[in-house]
This record gives sequence, structure tokens and C-alpha cells, in this order.
Amino acid sequence: MDYSALARESLDRVAASKPLVHQITNIVVANDSANLTLGFGALPVMAYAPQEVAEMAAIAQALVLNIGTLSEEEIAAMLIAGRAAGEKGIPIILDPVGAGATRFRTESALRLLRELPITVLRGNRGEIGTLVGSGEVRGVEATGSEDPRQVAAAAHAAFGVTVAVTGPTDVVVGKGVTYLVSNGTPLLGAITGSGCMATAAIGIFNAVGADAALQTALALATYEVAAERAAVGDPGPGTFRARLLDEVAALHATDIDGVRITTA
Amino acid sequence: MDYSALARESLDRVAASKPLVHQITNIVVANDSANLTLGFGALPVMAYAPQEVAEMAAIAQALVLNIGTLSEEEIAAMLIAGRAAGEKGIPIILDPVGAGATRFRTESALRLLRELPITVLRGNRGEIGTLVGSGEVRGVEATGSEDPRQVAAAAHAAFGVTVAVTGPTDVVVGKGVTYLVSNGTPLLGAITGSGCMATAAIGIFNAVGADAALQTALALATYEVAAERAAVGDPGPGTFRARLLDEVAALHATDIDGVRITTA
Amino acid sequence: MDYSALARESLDRVAASKPLVHQITNIVVANDSANLTLGFGALPVMAYAPQEVAEMAAIAQALVLNIGTLSEEEIAAMLIAGRAAGEKGIPIILDPVGAGATRFRTESALRLLRELPITVLRGNRGEIGTLVGSGEVRGVEATGSEDPRQVAAAAHAAFGVTVAVTGPTDVVVGKGVTYLVSNGTPLLGAITGSGCMATAAIGIFNAVGADAALQTALALATYEVAAERAAVGDPGPGTFRARLLDEVAALHATDIDGVRITTA
Repeated sequence: MDYSALARESLDRVAASKPLVHQITNIVVANDSANLTLGFGALPVMAYAPQEVAEMAAIAQALVLNIGTLSEEEIAAMLIAGRAAGEKGIPIILDPVGAGATRFRTESALRLLRELPITVLRGNRGEIGTLVGSGEVRGVEATGSEDPRQVAAAAHAAFGVTVAVTGPTDVVVGKGVTYLVSNGTPLLGAITGSGCMATAAIGIFNAVGADAALQTALALATYEVAAERAAVGDPGPGTFRARLLDEVAALHATDIDGVRITTA
Repeated sequence: MDYSALARESLDRVAASKPLVHQITNIVVANDSANLTLGFGALPVMAYAPQEVAEMAAIAQALVLNIGTLSEEEIAAMLIAGRAAGEKGIPIILDPVGAGATRFRTESALRLLRELPITVLRGNRGEIGTLVGSGEVRGVEATGSEDPRQVAAAAHAAFGVTVAVTGPTDVVVGKGVTYLVSNGTPLLGAITGSGCMATAAIGIFNAVGADAALQTALALATYEVAAERAAVGDPGPGTFRARLLDEVAALHATDIDGVRITTA
Repeated sequence: MDYSALARESLDRVAASKPLVHQITNIVVANDSANLTLGFGALPVMAYAPQEVAEMAAIAQALVLNIGTLSEEEIAAMLIAGRAAGEKGIPIILDPVGAGATRFRTESALRLLRELPITVLRGNRGEIGTLVGSGEVRGVEATGSEDPRQVAAAAHAAFGVTVAVTGPTDVVVGKGVTYLVSNGTPLLGAITGSGCMATAAIGIFNAVGADAALQTALALATYEVAAERAAVGDPGPGTFRARLLDEVAALHATDIDGVRITTA
């Protein structure tokens, strides 16, 4: 498969249709996620109030749920928004930030998986591993030594959703298919919210294509190609963060070459 | 009129008096708005708790209300802060982010307009149009084809406040006067929060001058002159965002030439 | 004393042990504080829910409490987290942002000092002065003319905790010791959250050393050495903000020379 061409097609569909991506996300990354969404050519909207989330999700093309600074009220709003998204049939992406660090995070993530028609679950191997009983997490970072491929496969089996375990090589497991994405740069680990931005990218790409596993792999590869370009010259993390947004926005005018996706 | 000179005078008054601008704003732009406020030489303070907003508004020189990530509690705090601001007679600027996207946003914006002595209402033509029954909005972006001059005039007639409808040309309608501001750069549309920052700028300029429509036009032109300078060389959005703050702060030491304000 | 060498040793301990720093902070600086924490080689986690803060604090190596956008619920969560941190014996750093601007801020800061085993209290002279009955504050900025050394000494006497009053010269008062730190750059005053980031740095350094006053002085000096390097060439505040993160991350690979700490 020519994944670079497929990434290009998805990106062109984003630019043409400007999907609205409703995000219920954390206070740390809200600005970065909104700017990333604009950079990809989509429209971000952050909306949290129980009075409006169903209505907002119903006019959106994707819903992104991120529990990075969760509260009981926010989980309740996610459930309302998720049910509306499910009725409309738009993709729902879940980022279980910090699952495993506290019971509240683990149980909230499991509840969202149980009660909502989640399309894609994305996390690091600690977070996703926790949800299937095997991971280790410190705060929001994976520790331990789980094999990300086993973790992703176990989570796919347990929850029946497309699972993306991101790391040096990202593993995406969907029905009958596993993609490995080996783009990226260690600098992504030097800035906060790089995983949350990956989740936003997955939301954007799933808004313009029905094959969840493929769109997820394309989203990760495309985002990470931009990150590789932003990492040229090995800038510090503050400069890298600004350049990452530059390079995402610049994708529209360049080839998306260098995509490294394989199936396993 | 020499609007560049008037902008210079206002900016000098900001630098000399360092007005405190109390902002109840959204989680996406809070950092950018605070940095922009500092860049203009004013003091930002973000305060949301019902226990303190009246006291904070009472020591401020302007109050900025932005419903970008509103909640019922936040609207209640805005009402408390707005009443205190009204008693003290400081300007209140309202940014009805996403009005039209959900009923909660539209109704909350209308409630704030009804119950508070708003000085300036700023939004895009979709948001302001919605409030007078004509706009179209997707998420927080205007769609549809309303004429911004008609929208601004209708909102001014309906609410009796100064209205700024921003876009490629900004329209500011006050009592018996319409200003057109044609500064700016398309790059402002490439970053999140550029409209919210315009609203903060309006708050700052109204803190140092009593003619609301004039101060609003000067604020928009000054902010957009800085944006034009930040756009030189056509940087990506991440770099543009950093440079925008640089250029706002640099205004203190340069001429504010290139202001393009006309009356209509 | 060779404070540069001590700073180096602390930074190496941070890089080796990657302390988890649990932060309950404000919506304006959450992103900057998380990125700064990563830049120093530590792990940030922002967690606010009463259901999880005790568990999160119990796995952390330091707890940072910042009342910049406080609410009643957030103060309650801080009390829960602080008690768990106290039981575990990890350092608790308090940043009373805007104390003195409103009674709610002043009283909340005093309550946290009264009910929790705070290790370090950091603020500007207005904020800290307010807590001992002498300061002046506008919004979150110190006004008035208190002597920071007297303010810090008075607060140390009143609360029995290490006190850092930051400004052109930072004053750190612990049991029987006063450090003066004269690193830094006026550009820190040009960006929002520079004080909050200083507080995060204090949390990080106190996670890897038991002498609270010394670790606090080292944290401030190290952070401000990075700021001095970021200020080279006198960039605008937007560029300075990005470079500050670059320079913090670059400390790992360079000498931390230029530390200016004296005892008084």
C-alpha cells in the first residue's frame, strides 16, 4: 500500500470538508490540541457543559475524550456527549491519560469504554496495559516493560475497539489487522501533550474515513512525519513545540513522504 | 483623524497606568490572553470563584467575559463580576464564543447582554449574527454569508452596546458611528484564540478611554498591526503565535504606523 | 559553598530519579508548568479530582499547590492532597497567587498554611507580605514598597516554613539561614506564569534534597540561569517563553555556571 498517498488523500479530505472535532480534554493541552486541529485544517471546539455537549457532539464529525484532568462532572459530560455521538454515528476517540496512576482514572476510562461506542482507544503501553490488567504507570508516564504489541492486542480483544499503543513504534490493532508506525522523534517525549495531540490527530483522520485502524495509523504517521521535520536541527523543546505546529500546517503544501507504516 | 497617533496615545496610557484587566475566559486561550495583556503593558488577572469575582472586578479597570468553555457556574460568576463592574462603572467586554453552535451558548450570551451593562460585544459575524437571529456557526467558526456591517448594525440596534464584528475587515458600530478596520493577516485565522485575544485588547484599550467605539477600533487596529508585523516572512502558525506576542510588546518602542481605520 | 556544583548535583538527581511532581495549579500556566517540569527531567502530573488527589500525592515525590485560578472545590482538593503528602512526608510547595487581591485568596492561602505541613511558601513581596499583614497587591502583581527581606523573615517567623520572596533579588529564609539569589532577567516579568514556574522548579528540587531552604535557593538560581541564557539577544516575550523551555532542557548537558547565591 502507498500509505503516503493515503495520508495525502485523508489530509485533502480534511482540508476540503473542515470536520468539526468536539474535544473534551484537559487544561494542560487544550491550547495545543486546538492549534493542532486548526493546523490539520479541521475545526476544533472545546465544550464541557452538560447543557450543551450533546448538541455540540451532534453537529461534530468526531468526538475526542481525554481524561487528563478529569472530574466527576467532566466524566458525566463525556457520557452525555458520547451517547449523542453514538446516535449520530460519528467516531469517538478515547485517551485514558494516567489510567493506572489512580483508581479514579482507571475506573473512569473503563466506564467510558463500557458505556460508550468508542471507536479508537489511544494511550501509552502503561495506560492501555492497566486497562487490561498488566500496565505500570507513574503519573502519566508508562514504566514497566510490557510488549506494546501484546498490550494492544489484549485491549482490542477485551474492548472490541481499535487500539493504538503509541511509543517509539506505534501499534494499531483493529479487526484482523495490525499496523506498526515507526515515524516520530524522541523530542515528542520532551513536550507535554504530545500524546494528547496524537489523539486529536486520530480524531481528525477518523472524521474523514471509515476504516478506523487505517485512519488511526495514517493519523499517527502524518503527525509524526511533521514532528520529524520539526526536529531537524535538534531544537530545544520550546522551539520544537512551536515548529511542530508550523510543520503540521505545512503538510498541506508538501508531499507527505517518509511515512513508515507496515502491517504485522 | 490621525488614528495612528490616537493608538499611540492609548498605548502610552496603558503603559503609564497599567490597568488591571479581570478576565473570566476559557481554558484554551487563558495563557495567550494573559501574555497578550502583559505585552500591551496591562495587568491580567484571571479569577472565576463566586467568592471573589465581585471583589476582583471592583479593583479592575476592565472586565472581559468570554464564554469559550462556559459552564453554569462560570456564567453565574460572570453575572456577579459584571454587576460589580457595573456599579464601579468600568467597561465590560463580552465575547460570545460559539454563540449559535449550541442553545446554551446563545442563551447564555443573551442573558449576559440582558442582565449586565455590557460596553462592547465582540464576535465573528456568525456569533453576532446568531444573537440577532441571522448567523450561522460551526463550532466556533462563522459560516454563512451575512454582511458583517448589517450584522453589527443590527446587534447595535438590538442591544444598545458597541458592537465589533471581526473578520477580514472589522466593523465597529457605536452610537452614531461606524468604524471599519482593515488591518490584519490571514495568519490570525490559523491560530486558536486570535479572536479572544482581540477581545482582551478591546478590554485593555477601553480601560484607558471612554469612547467605547473609538477605543475598540484602535484596539483592533493596534493588535492587527502587530499581527501584520508578526506575519512578515509568512511563518507557520506556531512561530507566528510566538512572534505575535513579541510584536505586541515591541509596539511600545515603535511607531504604530499602518493603522487602517475609516468611518462609514 | 560551590552552589553551581550543588545545583548540578540536584539536577543530576532529578534526571536520574525522575521525581513525579503532582501539581494542582491554575489554568493559565498548566501547560508551561508541565513543560518546565519535563525540561528539568521530572515528571509532571496535574490532578484535581477529590476522588484521586490523595492517591496521586501518595505516589508523588513533591506536591505543588498554586491558587492562581482557585475555587472552593480546588481548595478542598488541595487539602486532601496535602494531607496525603504530609502522611507520606513529601515536600509541599504553596504559591499563594494573588493573595491580597481578594479576601478569598488571602484566606485560602492562610487556611492551606494552617492546615497543611507546607514545606516552602513562594510568592512575590506583595503576596507574601499580605499573609503577614503588610503587602500590597494589584491582581497578581506586587505593588507597595515592602523590603522583601523583612517580608520573608516575617513570614518565616509567622508560619514556620521556608519562605521564598522572589523579585529582582530572591530572598529565601529557612531555619537559621537566609539565601539571596540574584540571578534572573527582567524578561521573566514580561511573561505570565514565570513565578508559577519558579514554584514548580522549587517543587522539583525539593523532591531530590531534604534541606528545603538550600534546595529552594538552588531551584531559583538554576531556573533563572536558564532564563538569563534565554534572554540573550533580548528577544520578545513570545520568543523568550519558547527559549526558556529550551534553555531549561539544555541545562542537563552544560555547566550551570553563573549561579549567584549568597547568604545574608
